[in-house]
Amino acid sequence: MNVTVNGRARHFRTVAFDSATNHVLLIEQRLLPHEFKVVRTRDFRETARAIKDMVVRGAGAIGATAAYGLAQGARAFRGKDLKRFDRHIDVVYHVLKSARPTAVDPVNAMNQARAIMGAGATVEERQALALAAAEEFANHDVQHCEAIGRHGAKLIRSGMKVLTHCNAGWLAFVDIGSATAPMYAAQAQRRKFHVYCDETRPRSQGATLTAWELAQQGISHQVIADNAAGHLMQRGEIDLVIVGSDRTLGRTGEVANKIGTYTKAVLAKRHGIPFYVAIPLSTIDWNLRSGFDIPIEERDQSEVLGAWGVTRGGRREYVRVASPGSNAFNAGFDVTPAELITGIITPAGIFKPRELWAKRSQLGHDN
Amino acid sequence: MNVTVNGRARHFRTVAFDSATNHVLLIEQRLLPHEFKVVRTRDFRETARAIKDMVVRGAGAIGATAAYGLAQGARAFRGKDLKRFDRHIDVVYHVLKSARPTAVDPVNAMNQARAIMGAGATVEERQALALAAAEEFANHDVQHCEAIGRHGAKLIRSGMKVLTHCNAGWLAFVDIGSATAPMYAAQAQRRKFHVYCDETRPRSQGATLTAWELAQQGISHQVIADNAAGHLMQRGEIDLVIVGSDRTLGRTGEVANKIGTYTKAVLAKRHGIPFYVAIPLSTIDWNLRSGFDIPIEERDQSEVLGAWGVTRGGRREYVRVASPGSNAFNAGFDVTPAELITGIITPAGIFKPRELWAKRSQLGHDN
Repeated sequence: MNVTVNGRARHFRTVAFDSATNHVLLIEQRLLPHEFKVVRTRDFRETARAIKDMVVRGAGAIGATAAYGLAQGARAFRGKDLKRFDRHIDVVYHVLKSARPTAVDPVNAMNQARAIMGAGATVEERQALALAAAEEFANHDVQHCEAIGRHGAKLIRSGMKVLTHCNAGWLAFVDIGSATAPMYAAQAQRRKFHVYCDETRPRSQGATLTAWELAQQGISHQVIADNAAGHLMQRGEIDLVIVGSDRTLGRTGEVANKIGTYTKAVLAKRHGIPFYVAIPLSTIDWNLRSGFDIPIEERDQSEVLGAWGVTRGGRREYVRVASPGSNAFNAGFDVTPAELITGIITPAGIFKPRELWAKRSQLGHDN
Repeated sequence: MNVTVNGRARHFRTVAFDSATNHVLLIEQRLLPHEFKVVRTRDFRETARAIKDMVVRGAGAIGATAAYGLAQGARAFRGKDLKRFDRHIDVVYHVLKSARPTAVDPVNAMNQARAIMGAGATVEERQALALAAAEEFANHDVQHCEAIGRHGAKLIRSGMKVLTHCNAGWLAFVDIGSATAPMYAAQAQRRKFHVYCDETRPRSQGATLTAWELAQQGISHQVIADNAAGHLMQRGEIDLVIVGSDRTLGRTGEVANKIGTYTKAVLAKRHGIPFYVAIPLSTIDWNLRSGFDIPIEERDQSEVLGAWGVTRGGRREYVRVASPGSNAFNAGFDVTPAELITGIITPAGIFKPRELWAKRSQLGHDN
């Protein structure tokens, strides 16, 4: 999407590749929203470190980064010996995989790339196929988000006020995003609407990343405290809610997403406001039979007890807000039941949460 | 309540008076929770400045501070001329009143004191009556909070998990508090329970003041993000909600309180969890006929866009969290309808919100 650099709007992807220098280009997300910077990783080990250190985050974005990292490693190989090349690729694969051991997207992306590379008869062919596979993975990610936008845009009419929670924006994907895709598509169709961004404590991804995205894109928006959405709904100030999801259960339609999502769904239901969840197909879990089986990560207390920001003097600092003698409970996610969800916006169309299982072949589930 | 100073628990009131030195003693609330300090104001102008600058806040606490300030001004008068004394009292009254022009408690407290002073025949008698009236106002505030505690304590059984929002604690009153009163009373009855404190963005009074109070008092508690209460309720981890109120409508049972209160009430209703509001009688508004007529203060955006805290280096600083190009919407309060409220805990007993009007004579309403 667009970022204004030195007063000029330029297009960026979260992850890109410079084939001339064999560098992966990443938006340094840890500096956002206070500073915009694109960093280059010069070899696959640097790329793995960027994944590990969260220079880049978000399922689609780290999948593409790993695929580019694999191509980068492949293209750095010197020689024509296929066996030595394959052993080298094993090393590259494992270094990139272990950067974020529990994430599934890097593994999926790299497995796909290795299958494609296998068709090459020479080192040179395999190197070219590795890059082609990475580009394909990244382009598919973008196309899926575009499709989410195409289906979801019809939900946003001019004059609407839309609430979103956390960041399911282009910074979490290669481009466009999931929950933001309908907004960007509606904007492209010249509709005027307003977005309320829940700040999304404790990590404030709404106030930082989503607000930054919308500002760069010139979409009217305001940050609100997570406490304020109920009041706004009561006053008729919210017409539509769109959020993303970390895991959606294909069998039940339950949605795991950032802590606070469930609360917004309960409020939306009370006020008769449509509540949509926008997801790429890769986040559908076809195995789990109950939302209570989704493990809810408990994160570090310091996130709740304080905040990261920039001081008046311009330094990035953590401040302790809470009383020094007190502890916190910090669950990262919650689970929203299907009955509170109006629809799931996917690249294949919009579905009722409880019809995902019946439509599973359409949604890419094999068996 | 208790505060541990140099390793020893000592009892403090939020506001007190030193008759020997004619000083008002105030807990410097702007330094909490990171530093505990009692400041002395040496004359009524300093006392007015402390109210204005929010050294002290909360309806009961500023009422008592103004009453003590009036006594302080009266006792500083030299001479026996009653006319000159009364003119001096007029000045003191107006200086203290204009410190927080929209607040009703300082005016009520001072009017009450002036009526009592009128019975004195000499300057000396009026000076003594001014102090007696201030002490009476402060003691009544404490007694009312004690009565709230007595009635509310029976709601808290051992093993319960109680949610509270914002700070309706002793720091907002002279002592004991409203929403915290049942907790302190239940603790005195040796019941063991756990309190979840909503951090209460944007000003974080739950993470700062309520958590500090509970820590000083040795009550088991954890701070949670405002986003987390819904998840905890879903998992059966909250048994009871008690909050305070800035204004409760006697005619409808609607409750205005810190932004986010409404959301917690909606969640509690969905999960069948009792939701109580604890209030002194002075916050009942017998005139307004609809919650929509309550003016909702819009506060400075900077509160939502950042946070105050203490850096790792120990400095108190404001950090900007949100994206630099983005604005915020910041409503200070919301209104919870009667249907979501299980009961209103008052010094006169616990009432259903819709029976306040029928019981108005019992609740101190004259006509």
